[in-house]
Amino acid sequence: MDISLADIAGLLGGRVLGDAQVRIRQIATLDKAQAQHISFLTNSKYRAQLAGTQAGAVILGCADAEATTLPRIISDNPYAYFARVSALLNPLPEVTPGIHASASIGSGALIDETASIAANVVIGENACIGAHSVIGAGCVIGANTVVGKNALLYPGVVIYHDCVIGDKLIAHAGVVIGSDGFGFANEAGQWIKIPQIGRVVIGNDVEIGANTTIDRGALDDTVISDGVKLDNQIQVAHNVKIGAHTAIAGCTGIAGSTSIGSYCRIGGSAGILGHLHIADNVEISSFTLIGKSIRKSGSYSGVFPFSSNEEWRRNAVHLRHLDDLAKRIKELELQVNALSNTE
Amino acid sequence: MDISLADIAGLLGGRVLGDAQVRIRQIATLDKAQAQHISFLTNSKYRAQLAGTQAGAVILGCADAEATTLPRIISDNPYAYFARVSALLNPLPEVTPGIHASASIGSGALIDETASIAANVVIGENACIGAHSVIGAGCVIGANTVVGKNALLYPGVVIYHDCVIGDKLIAHAGVVIGSDGFGFANEAGQWIKIPQIGRVVIGNDVEIGANTTIDRGALDDTVISDGVKLDNQIQVAHNVKIGAHTAIAGCTGIAGSTSIGSYCRIGGSAGILGHLHIADNVEISSFTLIGKSIRKSGSYSGVFPFSSNEEWRRNAVHLRHLDDLAKRIKELELQVNALSNTE
Amino acid sequence: MDISLADIAGLLGGRVLGDAQVRIRQIATLDKAQAQHISFLTNSKYRAQLAGTQAGAVILGCADAEATTLPRIISDNPYAYFARVSALLNPLPEVTPGIHASASIGSGALIDETASIAANVVIGENACIGAHSVIGAGCVIGANTVVGKNALLYPGVVIYHDCVIGDKLIAHAGVVIGSDGFGFANEAGQWIKIPQIGRVVIGNDVEIGANTTIDRGALDDTVISDGVKLDNQIQVAHNVKIGAHTAIAGCTGIAGSTSIGSYCRIGGSAGILGHLHIADNVEISSFTLIGKSIRKSGSYSGVFPFSSNEEWRRNAVHLRHLDDLAKRIKELELQVNALSNTE
Repeated sequence: MDISLADIAGLLGGRVLGDAQVRIRQIATLDKAQAQHISFLTNSKYRAQLAGTQAGAVILGCADAEATTLPRIISDNPYAYFARVSALLNPLPEVTPGIHASASIGSGALIDETASIAANVVIGENACIGAHSVIGAGCVIGANTVVGKNALLYPGVVIYHDCVIGDKLIAHAGVVIGSDGFGFANEAGQWIKIPQIGRVVIGNDVEIGANTTIDRGALDDTVISDGVKLDNQIQVAHNVKIGAHTAIAGCTGIAGSTSIGSYCRIGGSAGILGHLHIADNVEISSFTLIGKSIRKSGSYSGVFPFSSNEEWRRNAVHLRHLDDLAKRIKELELQVNALSNTE
Repeated sequence: MDISLADIAGLLGGRVLGDAQVRIRQIATLDKAQAQHISFLTNSKYRAQLAGTQAGAVILGCADAEATTLPRIISDNPYAYFARVSALLNPLPEVTPGIHASASIGSGALIDETASIAANVVIGENACIGAHSVIGAGCVIGANTVVGKNALLYPGVVIYHDCVIGDKLIAHAGVVIGSDGFGFANEAGQWIKIPQIGRVVIGNDVEIGANTTIDRGALDDTVISDGVKLDNQIQVAHNVKIGAHTAIAGCTGIAGSTSIGSYCRIGGSAGILGHLHIADNVEISSFTLIGKSIRKSGSYSGVFPFSSNEEWRRNAVHLRHLDDLAKRIKELELQVNALSNTE
Repeated sequence: MDISLADIAGLLGGRVLGDAQVRIRQIATLDKAQAQHISFLTNSKYRAQLAGTQAGAVILGCADAEATTLPRIISDNPYAYFARVSALLNPLPEVTPGIHASASIGSGALIDETASIAANVVIGENACIGAHSVIGAGCVIGANTVVGKNALLYPGVVIYHDCVIGDKLIAHAGVVIGSDGFGFANEAGQWIKIPQIGRVVIGNDVEIGANTTIDRGALDDTVISDGVKLDNQIQVAHNVKIGAHTAIAGCTGIAGSTSIGSYCRIGGSAGILGHLHIADNVEISSFTLIGKSIRKSGSYSGVFPFSSNEEWRRNAVHLRHLDDLAKRIKELELQVNALSNTE
């Protein structure tokens, strides 16, 4: 693939400055780029690299339009533009439609003829796979589950029975969708399993990272809305609802029946307890446990700051006596007040 | 399936009040239930919904026996009763005994003729699969491993060689049992692998959530006792022992050689360091790290409370100076004491 | 297998004291060992067990050479010696070279004739598998990926396309290597996927625990150096670099573009934010979030100490008012100072 700046701008918009006929094969960072590469400046931290870059062209924001004489494309949102150029230069590999001879297809399953079903895939009875969907090697799709159009399931994804998946799902290797929620009733110390008869319902344009797990609902459904992006190794418990265009970083756990708003950004290794409501546009820091509902958009944190072991040990010991310290301050205030009045 | 209240009570006990001939097809929450549903009140938070429910019948505790005129079953433990009714109304799908043509069975393996071995399963030499066990698509069972009766392994479970699994195991997709523990000896900065020659031994009635991992012992065994319930994405390191009927929520990690008592409840994303002993009936909050043995039953927590970013930043900065603050309080006390004595 | 102390020392070095002809079949802990076992003392905590052990022989450090009259091998590093003896007594099971009939091998793939490819393995076009490598059941190796010599992939490992893996990789079940990093550009609230066109490059002698995930780079590569040991359920984000011989315990997450030095030891359920640099020889405690670069070798912690629920609640409430407490101390100091001067 080899495309001119003019053709890129023709397809993706943006304003070309300098030689619009320069031809581009690939995208690269400012310090690695060579003549056949287009690069980009989206973080002012890297501005110094612009002067020395060997890139054939660059993508810049409006404010940086004259920061170089290299051939360049100016965009209101250079990071989004970079994403689109990269997608243009790096199309997904072509897949051949059809069903591999080693796949097992249950009776009544409907597989669109443009879909691609790889080796060792197992598809349950009455499941549906939509047009142009790619089901990677060894994936298992349960009975009655519907996968929409243009899905891309990498190898080893398991979707249990009766789930409903929208269009353009990307699910990475090891993703599990529709496993039983963790529901048990206690009777004299022993646990009685509560059948998990809800579903997982996933909207369009969702991406799910490797080894992330999404449990089916206990009675109602677990719901992942349009445009949600989940990183690797996230755990979504039963009956959770995640609002549209929310992004969650790796290793985060969300407990049962919690609903998260739209346009939220949740950091890695965070946690949200069960039965809570998180408003739209909430940002949660990595490593923060949310233990109460958040009604107001904004940024929230709760992280213990690290230090050297010795410093940490010296300080942390007082955490078990904070209440005592607070009382001693109160007492001192009373005493000092009394002393001041005496004078 | 369609069953009368009288027949439910005949099978499961409980006292029927109102029309015992009302017929039920499914279970649902108070706000979603319709005439063909039985619902339940197990959390006083939802009592207000009882008045408006469209349910055909409800399950209630003794104290609520007269809180509605709907047909109802009264139980000492309405939540456990709900679990049993749901199991009655939602039996597992029937599976056909036999071995799928695409499965690979090692020499000497003993597979009970009532067991069901799905597509692409691989069973190692001399492994045993007990009566009525269901081994889902693509599962791999190592050589010499014994799986008891009535096991239900969802697709993609891997059990390594030489493990011993009791009856009625439920293992969800992506579970790994018997992987090597993380054992290395350091020699001049480099790591020498310590062979992990113990096993994983699992009792009866254990459920293991999706993508949970349980390492085999280094020399002795890793042991999961009867009735233990593990949620998704839990990591159980080598030589851990988990006592009977303990339940652990998702994303929790338990380090090597720790033993956990019976009837414990451990929250999500918790951690327990290695070589510790946790007593019976201990409750550990989500997001809490247990760094010392717990000898006494009770509830334990260690979570940093979250707040808005600004508030968190303003407060957290003092954590690096707590020892200094404590010393200043001590100094103030001495000074104030001196001043008081002067007067 | 049955070998004399003299023969062990002939192969592995060390000094034999007592009967060098005693024959050993297996290794065991001091309290479990019988006459056919060799045991070891590597932790002074277990010294009392030495007197009562039934072991046929023991491995001891130089300082303990005369602590028993049992046949014994004396080593400078008895723990490393134990690891080597165990490896000697517990060789990996023999595997038969060749490609299982159910494996799917892409065109142009080069599989060394001494490699073993198990049932249901799928190998992509132009991939290479080196000599004596063992690819377990159901593994999927992407197009153009190179796996070196003597690799041991347990069942269900997925390596995406274009990755480069050195010699002697051990990857446990459910490992995912080369999945897309979590990279999106935001445009008016919606996420545009950034193609992840880098690779994962892994050195020699690396071990990766069950269900650990390593994402491919966005533009450049994710790099795991020689001798790195990763436990289970670790998440390594795109463009992370991990230096040689660093060991990381289970459930830890490392965010994008962070580089970790050599010889580091990172505890379980730790976290490291993105775009940071961690020096060589850094030790990070379990459950600690590293939010800033660490330029100096040493040990670092940031854990909230647990206590009983009541005690925790009583103390934790003040964390939201630490800044206020600090100000009140400052104020008291001013007042006390004023009072002292008055006198």
